[in-house]
Formats: sequence, structure tokens, C-alpha cells
Amino acid sequence: MTRQPDLTEPPYYAVIFSSLRNDQDDDAYQVMAAQMQALASTQQGYLGFESVRDAAGKGISISYWKDLESIRLWKQQLQHQQAQQFGREKWYQNYRVHVARVERTYEFE
Amino acid sequence: MTRQPDLTEPPYYAVIFSSLRNDQDDDAYQVMAAQMQALASTQQGYLGFESVRDAAGKGISISYWKDLESIRLWKQQLQHQQAQQFGREKWYQNYRVHVARVERTYEFE
Repeated sequence: MTRQPDLTEPPYYAVIFSSLRNDQDDDAYQVMAAQMQALASTQQGYLGFESVRDAAGKGISISYWKDLESIRLWKQQLQHQQAQQFGREKWYQNYRVHVARVERTYEFE
Repeated sequence: MTRQPDLTEPPYYAVIFSSLRNDQDDDAYQVMAAQMQALASTQQGYLGFESVRDAAGKGISISYWKDLESIRLWKQQLQHQQAQQFGREKWYQNYRVHVARVERTYEFE
């Protein structure tokens, strides 16, 4: 998991991506995932990212965004569209996306 | 990760629990976690649960609920309160909770 993002006060938005990988011996996936994380962080309205994947290939990744418009633009970004297509064709057995409005947050350290 | 919950149409709510474990050699944690999952599933407004934890002890768990009142009742449930206390005292180095309203969802299979 990446470090907890340093988030602003709600409301903001979370895109929850729950997935099962097809083939974990695929270096191209790791490269693309790193590229997409780096690219997302440069997008308008990006607030943060966290991700966990277990040894069985099950994962939950969450990106945080200022508003729905930022999410829409990121989903349509050209390189990201290509990554999404690779994801469906090669990397993911299945995935589910939830777009949610964060109402409140609290933490323990 | 547990199986993807079979969710109703949005809107509903997600409680995102991002955490780092202290000590993963603790069987009591596994027992309590299973008990809390089972107990949560009997609560009013419970819709589903998914969770991933990696070998380094980093995890994201998401429970889905019908409304904020269901989340409030579950947070105050007596055995769950005790589990939360154990969590802070023994099991988690840190955690962060996001309560979010799911606006839309889509999936790929």
C-alpha cells in the first residue's frame, strides 16, 4: 500500500477500484501501474492514492479527487484510456468501480 | 479479499478502513476480525464487505451500508466497540476511516 494521502477536508471524492488480477508474473503491469499513478498525480483535482494487493492477486486501490469533473477528465485521459483497455484485455479477471462522495474522515495514529 | 458484495443500486454508503497492522502473528486478531465480519452482516442496513491485506500488514477493508444511521448503529454496537478498542490498543499501528456516499458503480467481468 502506498502511504496514506494527505487529504483536505471533506467533501471530496473517492474512486474505489476492487480487482482480481489474471497473471501476476507480468512486469508490464507493474510498469503501467506505476506510470498511471505518476500520471494521475499530475491531473487536475488529484488528491491522493492508496492501494493494497495480496499474494492471490486481489486488490483494492482508491484514488481521491476534488470533484466529479476531475474524475471524468482522468477517466477520459488518453494514456489512461489505453491502460484501461489493457486492463480489460489482459490484466484483470474482473473489477468493480465505486465512485463515492467522502462525507467525513477520521484517523488513529 | 472476500468476494465482491452483491450490492443494490446507489446511493448507499461505504466505510473505507485503511490500516497498518502492528503484529501479524496474532491469532486473536484473525478470530476477532472473523467475528466482526459475521456480526456486521447481521446488522440493520448491512450490504456487503470486501477486504485486502498484504504481507507487510497494510490493508484496506470496505463495508457497505444502506444509510448513515446503519453506520452509526454499527459503530456503537457493544462488541464492535470492544473490538475497536483492541484495535487501537494492540492491533493497528495506524488507521484512517472514510465514510462516503456511493454515487455510481460499474463492473467488468
